[in-house]
Amino acid sequence: MPDFEPQDPDYEARVRASFARQAAMATVGAHLLRVAPGEVEIELPFREDLTQQHGYLHAGVVTAVVDSACGYAAMSLTPPGGEVLSVEFKINLLSPAAGERFLARARVVRAGRNVTVCAGDAFALRDGREKLVATMLATMMNVR
Amino acid sequence: MPDFEPQDPDYEARVRASFARQAAMATVGAHLLRVAPGEVEIELPFREDLTQQHGYLHAGVVTAVVDSACGYAAMSLTPPGGEVLSVEFKINLLSPAAGERFLARARVVRAGRNVTVCAGDAFALRDGREKLVATMLATMMNVR
Amino acid sequence: MPDFEPQDPDYEARVRASFARQAAMATVGAHLLRVAPGEVEIELPFREDLTQQHGYLHAGVVTAVVDSACGYAAMSLTPPGGEVLSVEFKINLLSPAAGERFLARARVVRAGRNVTVCAGDAFALRDGREKLVATMLATMMNVR
Amino acid sequence: MPDFEPQDPDYEARVRASFARQAAMATVGAHLLRVAPGEVEIELPFREDLTQQHGYLHAGVVTAVVDSACGYAAMSLTPPGGEVLSVEFKINLLSPAAGERFLARARVVRAGRNVTVCAGDAFALRDGREKLVATMLATMMNVR
Repeated sequence: MPDFEPQDPDYEARVRASFARQAAMATVGAHLLRVAPGEVEIELPFREDLTQQHGYLHAGVVTAVVDSACGYAAMSLTPPGGEVLSVEFKINLLSPAAGERFLARARVVRAGRNVTVCAGDAFALRDGREKLVATMLATMMNVR
Repeated sequence: MPDFEPQDPDYEARVRASFARQAAMATVGAHLLRVAPGEVEIELPFREDLTQQHGYLHAGVVTAVVDSACGYAAMSLTPPGGEVLSVEFKINLLSPAAGERFLARARVVRAGRNVTVCAGDAFALRDGREKLVATMLATMMNVR
Repeated sequence: MPDFEPQDPDYEARVRASFARQAAMATVGAHLLRVAPGEVEIELPFREDLTQQHGYLHAGVVTAVVDSACGYAAMSLTPPGGEVLSVEFKINLLSPAAGERFLARARVVRAGRNVTVCAGDAFALRDGREKLVATMLATMMNVR
Repeated sequence: MPDFEPQDPDYEARVRASFARQAAMATVGAHLLRVAPGEVEIELPFREDLTQQHGYLHAGVVTAVVDSACGYAAMSLTPPGGEVLSVEFKINLLSPAAGERFLARARVVRAGRNVTVCAGDAFALRDGREKLVATMLATMMNVR
């Protein structure tokens, strides 16, 4: 995996400020853990009011958090003032999202001038063990 | 587009009962409008607490609702007692999700014995006009 | 579906000239049938040397032809001199690609300044009947 | 990444025999390098007759080879007699496929009873250096 050089020394503050403005992330109870150049980790505690019909976390909620992680992984590499939009993503739901909390980890696969491609995974944490429950491939557009 | 014959005469009640158990849909304020064989429509009013950093509906929330619509379109064609799991989906976000309310419309593209493929669109309604803001292609697995 | 206005009156000649330079299309025996604003149709006769292990057309060959159709549907709407690159695509393979010949039909879903999203289908023709065998959702980037 | 136990001691011979029946792979000049439990590598030398309009390898040809690698990575884990079908895949084309030869490397992300999810990458080799040019996420169905 490549090492990335941030173009903006204040990338972390910029990413954290933007995340703080994503009302949807606060609504579902997600918080931003780690921000590194080209890498972001978001945590989401389980909540009953975010489940699907079998009591697992709804695939759409998992997706929302992994999408945010991908977007901020891309944004960590943009120049000062740079914004990022999700163009598209694809996610495979590998196992039921059963756990006490969930981690979305995203990393930049390729950072281009206009388009950044990211990979993201969702892990369920249960009884101290981590299990991969979903994997995403996402295309982000850099907006200036 | 094909016309589908439901295998379960009570498909609509079954779909509506399952949707009612999706806590995440209630939490975001989505409700099920139309259920027909191989077709489902879900409505989501705009809410400030579901936005991303620019004030539009979060892509993940749009996705959650279109994913649910795709899943229930598939479930409308399963035999009595049939359940459906999202294996994977891909969504293209075409325009900012700006509107007073949103409609997710899904239809079955191909209903197989094990796998059902669905297409779903999200429309934003604003000043009485409807605009396509996202389009999804989803793979659902039939579970017995 | 929207009606598109071409920005280049010579869009068809430009698309046909570019297709003629795609050596891979000649190698697999594909030819360009219809070119309209935002819509392209490509035909591929069945050939034994393009099959997978069960004797059906290889999914990758189906994909190559639908991808080309999507790219040229996008290119039909670019200004004079405009080129198009495939950023990504997703394809669902719905049925074995069994037939005497195949049609790939692509249409633009949304034409943006930088990004154009296309949908493409592959149909198998067999004994005079047409069957949908694959469906694609593709993201194209406009290059100037 | 998980270590996989093959269910069939003769998995490699089975994979190689099936690959040898994929006429399309022979037609494009691809050959199977490495077969391990849950991992496959295919090589494709550059050929002018497989290019797109700018002289790079056609995205569809890259895709065909990565799809085959994903399918055989999945097949390496099936029981004796097991077959695999591509349900769907998504590929991001990261850079022009420029090189003297190309490597498609696929690995199983999750092996299920019915569905196996694989990740595949394509690398271009040029002047002794390897460059990632495409990345795929694929869903395979196990057929018995």
